[in-house]
Amino acid sequence: MKTAAICTIGDEILIGQIVDTNSSYIAQALNGIGVKVGRMESIADDRTQIISSLDNLLKCCDIVIVTGGLGPTKDDITKPALAELSGAAGYKEDAEQLAIIEQILSRRGIAMLPVNRAQAQVPDTATVIPNKLGTAPIMEFVFDEGRYGHKAVLYSMPGVPFETIAALDDVMQSIKSHFDTEPILHQTICTFGLAESVLAEKIADWEDSLPEYIHLAYLPGTLTGVRLRLSCYGAGSTERAAEFERTTAQLKEMLGTYVYGTGSDSLQSILPHLLQCPPQSAYQETVAVAESCTGGLVSNLITSVPGSSEYYKGSVTSYSNEVKINLLNVPEEVLEQKGAVSRECAEAMARGAACLLDTDYAVATTGIAGPGGGSEEKPVGTCWIAAAHRNPSTGETEVFSRLVQSASKSRKVNMERFAANALNLLRLVIGQKLL
Amino acid sequence: MKTAAICTIGDEILIGQIVDTNSSYIAQALNGIGVKVGRMESIADDRTQIISSLDNLLKCCDIVIVTGGLGPTKDDITKPALAELSGAAGYKEDAEQLAIIEQILSRRGIAMLPVNRAQAQVPDTATVIPNKLGTAPIMEFVFDEGRYGHKAVLYSMPGVPFETIAALDDVMQSIKSHFDTEPILHQTICTFGLAESVLAEKIADWEDSLPEYIHLAYLPGTLTGVRLRLSCYGAGSTERAAEFERTTAQLKEMLGTYVYGTGSDSLQSILPHLLQCPPQSAYQETVAVAESCTGGLVSNLITSVPGSSEYYKGSVTSYSNEVKINLLNVPEEVLEQKGAVSRECAEAMARGAACLLDTDYAVATTGIAGPGGGSEEKPVGTCWIAAAHRNPSTGETEVFSRLVQSASKSRKVNMERFAANALNLLRLVIGQKLL
Repeated sequence: MKTAAICTIGDEILIGQIVDTNSSYIAQALNGIGVKVGRMESIADDRTQIISSLDNLLKCCDIVIVTGGLGPTKDDITKPALAELSGAAGYKEDAEQLAIIEQILSRRGIAMLPVNRAQAQVPDTATVIPNKLGTAPIMEFVFDEGRYGHKAVLYSMPGVPFETIAALDDVMQSIKSHFDTEPILHQTICTFGLAESVLAEKIADWEDSLPEYIHLAYLPGTLTGVRLRLSCYGAGSTERAAEFERTTAQLKEMLGTYVYGTGSDSLQSILPHLLQCPPQSAYQETVAVAESCTGGLVSNLITSVPGSSEYYKGSVTSYSNEVKINLLNVPEEVLEQKGAVSRECAEAMARGAACLLDTDYAVATTGIAGPGGGSEEKPVGTCWIAAAHRNPSTGETEVFSRLVQSASKSRKVNMERFAANALNLLRLVIGQKLL
Repeated sequence: MKTAAICTIGDEILIGQIVDTNSSYIAQALNGIGVKVGRMESIADDRTQIISSLDNLLKCCDIVIVTGGLGPTKDDITKPALAELSGAAGYKEDAEQLAIIEQILSRRGIAMLPVNRAQAQVPDTATVIPNKLGTAPIMEFVFDEGRYGHKAVLYSMPGVPFETIAALDDVMQSIKSHFDTEPILHQTICTFGLAESVLAEKIADWEDSLPEYIHLAYLPGTLTGVRLRLSCYGAGSTERAAEFERTTAQLKEMLGTYVYGTGSDSLQSILPHLLQCPPQSAYQETVAVAESCTGGLVSNLITSVPGSSEYYKGSVTSYSNEVKINLLNVPEEVLEQKGAVSRECAEAMARGAACLLDTDYAVATTGIAGPGGGSEEKPVGTCWIAAAHRNPSTGETEVFSRLVQSASKSRKVNMERFAANALNLLRLVIGQKLL
């Protein structure tokens, strides 16, 4: 399998001012053509460091992709470093990129300055892949076996994310023209409700029996639950691809209702698929939310899905008891006798929201996000969640509730954990997975 | 100046499944104590590669911070690699971390498994810094001059971002105990309402006159506005520190009401300071929210502040016209004649929320977050926001509204931009900064 390294150049990443998102897109593209990314590096705008780092990466990798350091301003020194590394005798002007630069500048109504024209200059050792969206060309440098003991190709790409992303296809095509690559398959199974260690215990035997070409990784997150990523190497073989499909199906079956989706699914993105939606059904089911401790997060997650206005009517954030009583119809006795953080209050809130907003389903949260508050009986991290279903044929409302206990003292983590558990309960109730 | 490297371990970054945000936080923290980050690396969960990469980094840096690869599941191999690198003779159990693990598991109602207990085991060459929020301890390894020609310290931190962030202070303290670092002063001025380029134009002369030891960085964010970070190098000198204070005060004065805070202030965290709060006042002012296009985000931001239940009563997310009419009392004629995305609707929503939830202030949003929807007249990115103030002595309600126009097609970016503008309008209305 061919290996690659990604190297990002620029001080703004090293001082923590910006997060490197480019490398992630490049890695996905490389994986997609069967190239394994062995390492990523971020280094400073420093000529010596650039040359020595790239030289080291070319020694151990077939492909090196460099981003950044190509702007027109004087702090960018990637191009001369690449000229030196590749042993260029001089620079040449690339006519195609020059035409693109002229076009971009004239569209912005800016006159061409020498610094702009210089961007079309590349070391004479480079082959240019035009950057259609920006002024800095993509440069390809090929190093033969004599230099590093293996053929190696280096691509220098601009650092601006949308330019990088737009040029990725061209770069991948170029890589495929230099190397025979073998595809890798990825499949992600999204689970909710089992802690990482419990999940690992549950699938230990299955995991031990995986063939060496199938890899498993655990990706836990407070909002996502534990996502399991399976990777199949050498998936050009039909036997391996078939075995991968079987293995993935086995895992899904073993985990049953803990599985809520695959790939980039989230607990909120699956809602439209769970609810009866036209044209499959003549009737569009709807959802409402009542929130206390999650303060709007559940509603925000649901509405983060484009088109959610089709099935989502809205929410009430009842941060005071007054609002719980007046809007959500929580009985005063419940608040007095059981408190706001109680099964009874959560259930009343869910019923109240479904009734007030006239929806088929409603989900409610009431708990203590911390860091302050809480008591011995109800410590920070305690939350009651409830989901209500109004049966349109009988007119009856069923309510299901659960206690969530989070060990975290972080307000944000607790809010996320409570909100995710609420969406998970809603999923189980809609899918009739709860008895 | 001492130098550091940050190394992230885990296949999920190399295949592009997750973006490395930890390194950015760590770099900021290191900068804050006067340590310069020279490089960042992401490498695979591979024992040989881990050892050789860390060995190389320790050769050229004083401090190496490693994150990730410490989970309880078997794909994590950082710990044995660190044991080998540091020449450990065996493992020891850390009692303090074990107690934390027990606590975390018991709060979640999970039984302690051997894999959990093993997390409290560390190489005997390590000093443990307890991870209070998670099960994997932070490990410190000190290498004396004999090994690398200079004293070097390596810290292994968990990969879960909130655990990493929470432990950063302890790690920085430990670094300061090992090395003399030269203080850098940082001051951040938080502004809202001016685009980055307009702001830069406005302060260009002031910026040009800065002494070479004071640096300015622009940190724009959709939720935060443009934050300006001033850094003073060599701030051990009292003259420099005094000049830094003067310079910072000048900048604040120039920007007037565009400045909403300093340091880690946010548009939501300043609310309790703006509202009349006991004991300064006999009367606690309160806030409510009505949201359409922001879907709960404004409410979620307000409640992300600990103690917000003192002044925040709650919100209504009116994702359907029905809810706008029935709960928020938006006149049907407004929706028919002006539409839901209109000044009139936003103002009615703000009035309605203040009345329904019986608060002194209310803020409302109604717009088109996209990516779908919109029209030529009201394209994606259009949002009306309004803030209402009920005067308790006169009983009158004043309403202020603004149009927000975002050029983004991203639902998330637009929601954030709308929500931040709503909070900013609320700030200006509470502070009586609007005419």
